[in-house]
Amino acid sequence: MSSPRFGAGLWHFASYVDRYATDGYAPALSTLEQIDLAGSVGDLSVVDVPYPFTEGVSVADVKAALENNGLEAIGVTPEIYMRRFRYGAFTNPDADVRAEALAVLNEAAQVVRDLGASYLKVWPGQDGWDYPFQVDHKMQWDLAVGGMRELALANPDIRMVIEYKPREPRGRMFWDSAAKTALGIKAMGVDNVGVLLDFGHALFGGESPSASAQLLIDHGLLWAMDVNDNFRGWDDDLVVGTVHPVEVFEFFYTLKINNWEGVWQLDQFPFREDTVDAAKTSIRFLKAVHRALEELDIESLRAAQATNDAMAAQRLVQDVLLSSMRKGS
Amino acid sequence: MSSPRFGAGLWHFASYVDRYATDGYAPALSTLEQIDLAGSVGDLSVVDVPYPFTEGVSVADVKAALENNGLEAIGVTPEIYMRRFRYGAFTNPDADVRAEALAVLNEAAQVVRDLGASYLKVWPGQDGWDYPFQVDHKMQWDLAVGGMRELALANPDIRMVIEYKPREPRGRMFWDSAAKTALGIKAMGVDNVGVLLDFGHALFGGESPSASAQLLIDHGLLWAMDVNDNFRGWDDDLVVGTVHPVEVFEFFYTLKINNWEGVWQLDQFPFREDTVDAAKTSIRFLKAVHRALEELDIESLRAAQATNDAMAAQRLVQDVLLSSMRKGS
Amino acid sequence: MSSPRFGAGLWHFASYVDRYATDGYAPALSTLEQIDLAGSVGDLSVVDVPYPFTEGVSVADVKAALENNGLEAIGVTPEIYMRRFRYGAFTNPDADVRAEALAVLNEAAQVVRDLGASYLKVWPGQDGWDYPFQVDHKMQWDLAVGGMRELALANPDIRMVIEYKPREPRGRMFWDSAAKTALGIKAMGVDNVGVLLDFGHALFGGESPSASAQLLIDHGLLWAMDVNDNFRGWDDDLVVGTVHPVEVFEFFYTLKINNWEGVWQLDQFPFREDTVDAAKTSIRFLKAVHRALEELDIESLRAAQATNDAMAAQRLVQDVLLSSMRKGS
Amino acid sequence: MSSPRFGAGLWHFASYVDRYATDGYAPALSTLEQIDLAGSVGDLSVVDVPYPFTEGVSVADVKAALENNGLEAIGVTPEIYMRRFRYGAFTNPDADVRAEALAVLNEAAQVVRDLGASYLKVWPGQDGWDYPFQVDHKMQWDLAVGGMRELALANPDIRMVIEYKPREPRGRMFWDSAAKTALGIKAMGVDNVGVLLDFGHALFGGESPSASAQLLIDHGLLWAMDVNDNFRGWDDDLVVGTVHPVEVFEFFYTLKINNWEGVWQLDQFPFREDTVDAAKTSIRFLKAVHRALEELDIESLRAAQATNDAMAAQRLVQDVLLSSMRKGS
Repeated sequence: MSSPRFGAGLWHFASYVDRYATDGYAPALSTLEQIDLAGSVGDLSVVDVPYPFTEGVSVADVKAALENNGLEAIGVTPEIYMRRFRYGAFTNPDADVRAEALAVLNEAAQVVRDLGASYLKVWPGQDGWDYPFQVDHKMQWDLAVGGMRELALANPDIRMVIEYKPREPRGRMFWDSAAKTALGIKAMGVDNVGVLLDFGHALFGGESPSASAQLLIDHGLLWAMDVNDNFRGWDDDLVVGTVHPVEVFEFFYTLKINNWEGVWQLDQFPFREDTVDAAKTSIRFLKAVHRALEELDIESLRAAQATNDAMAAQRLVQDVLLSSMRKGS
Repeated sequence: MSSPRFGAGLWHFASYVDRYATDGYAPALSTLEQIDLAGSVGDLSVVDVPYPFTEGVSVADVKAALENNGLEAIGVTPEIYMRRFRYGAFTNPDADVRAEALAVLNEAAQVVRDLGASYLKVWPGQDGWDYPFQVDHKMQWDLAVGGMRELALANPDIRMVIEYKPREPRGRMFWDSAAKTALGIKAMGVDNVGVLLDFGHALFGGESPSASAQLLIDHGLLWAMDVNDNFRGWDDDLVVGTVHPVEVFEFFYTLKINNWEGVWQLDQFPFREDTVDAAKTSIRFLKAVHRALEELDIESLRAAQATNDAMAAQRLVQDVLLSSMRKGS
Repeated sequence: MSSPRFGAGLWHFASYVDRYATDGYAPALSTLEQIDLAGSVGDLSVVDVPYPFTEGVSVADVKAALENNGLEAIGVTPEIYMRRFRYGAFTNPDADVRAEALAVLNEAAQVVRDLGASYLKVWPGQDGWDYPFQVDHKMQWDLAVGGMRELALANPDIRMVIEYKPREPRGRMFWDSAAKTALGIKAMGVDNVGVLLDFGHALFGGESPSASAQLLIDHGLLWAMDVNDNFRGWDDDLVVGTVHPVEVFEFFYTLKINNWEGVWQLDQFPFREDTVDAAKTSIRFLKAVHRALEELDIESLRAAQATNDAMAAQRLVQDVLLSSMRKGS
Repeated sequence: MSSPRFGAGLWHFASYVDRYATDGYAPALSTLEQIDLAGSVGDLSVVDVPYPFTEGVSVADVKAALENNGLEAIGVTPEIYMRRFRYGAFTNPDADVRAEALAVLNEAAQVVRDLGASYLKVWPGQDGWDYPFQVDHKMQWDLAVGGMRELALANPDIRMVIEYKPREPRGRMFWDSAAKTALGIKAMGVDNVGVLLDFGHALFGGESPSASAQLLIDHGLLWAMDVNDNFRGWDDDLVVGTVHPVEVFEFFYTLKINNWEGVWQLDQFPFREDTVDAAKTSIRFLKAVHRALEELDIESLRAAQATNDAMAAQRLVQDVLLSSMRKGS
């Protein structure tokens, strides 16, 4: 594996509100200011850009800002989770709102073309339910799968990735796991829809991110990924490796043995941290992971796995992961 | 919906050990004694029978005992989770152990025929992993899916159901969710493998049991189910309705609107309770659920769902569920 | 138990933002508009009022609005979780910010006096930590306990309640459980600090809300409470009884047998619901709970508990809880 | 901190059953065989010995076996969680069973004296409840706290530690958290009862093990500890460091800065692993943790904590933890 390219969701460099700190954890920043911050990290090659941009920013502005910072757009993320979509985008019970969502998605697809990005990222965070008995689950499937199919057919030149997550902001999200997303995509019968696996979402959902990565690779669907960390009970979007370095390492190991060669991307919400410092700390860790992978005795690890020898496997892993920051590296 | 038939896993009437109370929560009982207890409940029509039977019990003995108690075997559950299968049955790294597992499964398929049961239940509780890096996840899929396919092809006259569960006894189980199981079954390309949805497993796995039931029904795979309850963090196998009556009700509502007409089955482990009393308490609650379903204003509920009106839906549900035990019912 | 008085956090009638729907789930409302909505519910007697009020609203305005709506202030909740307190209020590492927090708290104590409210509610949602190694846990205790003690001593005429919660918005909150809060309050050596038990926080924290209520009552600390519901993994602030009616009932049963006679209060965040409708649906359920409590055969329940007979206990509970909405009630 | 002494619960070297693999994950071993295995690890100085010993083994046998293996008994763990105690030991509703439990505990206290051990470990795993409404929570407190007090007063020469845990085998355990245990011990008014903090129990209970250690130290109650690992949702008793090395490191850091100098003890259940290999793998990791602690720049870490600078803290931690296995160490 050659040295990876690093990326980040542009929102990594934004500021955040939540339901309590309604005045925001830091002053708001424009799309262009966020791009400048991303550029200042130094190790980032690509960003995933939310759409619409902040007030008054044009596609041309974004292109220029990216170029100035030596960045490319890897993806575009339409914000289909704002107020008007609070009951869902694809699965909104109101046909007019579904049409509005589709319009935003198609606009964002055009931005993908304009920016020369690799994919349209679809994360319908309001599609799902909050209460028992709130929705008809069959209708949810029909609308979620059917709507995505329609979008894919309308933009055959654009690759799209669904990012699944168990919940938040909706109490339960429709696209909630790797397997359900794969099942839904197969039902669409299209070839331009894949999956973006978010490490933290898998962890939060009780999945082994490594097992989910393998599942998606084997179904030809792992088209993008991003990493972060959490405490398994919520999508904390912490800095990668600060809590679960072993499972992060297993995740990248799985990518490596499958010769997966995409971008190592950050999806983090550093609410209270300096966002550039958080990105740098993340990449510092990811470089250590990369060094450890280079040194890992994969043949011996496979031999251990061939007898389910967890202890031998762990020793091999610790030998390299717990040596990855040593001086001189 | 006509009055449902009730069933139970025969283990409901066994006694249990765990890693601490190694002397067991009650004296051990033979398969035949367990059948007699099941018969004494009065409302049970069918049982799911573990195989092998306890020492010295023959198929003929079981048939006679079932008949004496007015019971039928709905399923047979091979015990592919004992010591020799501690690293897995289908996914055991040792080909010889996999062959042993397949032999047990084929024997159990014959017992399905002998007892005239409806299905072979496959619950490979040791198939999975405990530690990060312990297994090759691609190999797990190949062995789990391939082995099940082989079993299905070898017994084309037998319907088989996979019961998924997130974990226990293995730290993580391979067949861990509704969607993954559906995905795996589709990959098998056979038509005699379906799913047994255990309410508590779905709940424990963070699923909405109702949504999972709908998903499996829409894929033609919901061939059997059982109910129980838990605190969402473990497969407690508590008596149904004691903790989550609303979601139990939503689950049965989903079955009703899909005209699903199988057995309402118990999979409970009353460690410290009188097992017959626990079954009676369960069925008493399930009868109340059935009454509530008869009275539910489904048209109004669908109207509420059509606008995602969770409050209206809840009031309709409470009107009947919180009236289901009233005197005179 | 005579018919309970009902109350609500005034924020129940506000609108909400989260980190995704930054445009808010509904238009913002002033403190006075929120009071009018609370008044329109019809069954509410008291509200807990956040402080500061919205722009331009005075204490006199609030008093007038409450009076117009037949409401009283039961508590005042200072907003010590906004941006400037993002690293904590009591435990903020910056002494100046701690002083600012104390100033806000003292101001809010004055509002308690002005409104004739029963208590100052202290919920330091940003006090805690996000990452391993982020804080010195001894210092956290010293600042959290010492600061609260200082506040209590400075306002000996005001009763104060700490509302504990496992987490959110801070990744981990300092006051995270009933027992820890009791332990901390005892260490303060003051007599004007108690606990507000939020049902959903206890549930989310893996506590039995009933057991926690008993613990706090036995320590003389259960001074206030509020109810809601969730899926045990997050503080969803759903409408009470929609998910866990049995444990809600056990909670109120515990209050009853202890002759606890405070307000039955709502702390809910109806993000996507009509807030008045949500309050009405809640109170409709709580009235059913109250009826069920009146009918519960407590003597028989105690007899069942005296032998740990969970089945008998559950039947007694279901007899009344699942009859509480019957026609004619 | 000088090089730590290592210990293990003797059950680490036993074999296990669970509710599925009722034939056990490996052949049963006698107390003496287990001691020999503990001795063969090479790095263990002490063991915690379950009582009663296996069939036919005397105190003299145990003393001899320990001596032969260069081991000492640090604690004695009475098995107050077998069948007869299935409804609890201290809190059993039957006074006769409570008396039986007390008899076993007093016998075990005598074994502490006979073996010259440091403490009697009290882990009442069946004390608690399974279902809502099953128990009277006030009575639980009175019996649990009162019984422990009685035991302590009857054996004033013996130090006792309570090991808390959220649940298992009982659905909910009475002693379920650090804070509740501290609160209960303070209520006893005795000076020979402290706490054994199990890292995995704290993690499973949603605690920060580091924060809990600090809390107990500051209350003078952290008398013993043991380590292991899990996936936060259950007491998996996995090998330490295999999943959560960062939080293990924070835990030991907290012990170090408080000059806590007890034994670093293992409480692991290697169901499917070679038990000696599992112990060796554990100690290999713990030695790396010790090296990392020696190298940690504590002054800089404290400075980072003094401004809540999580990124700086993490970098300092990674510098040493991710270098702890390097060649030449």
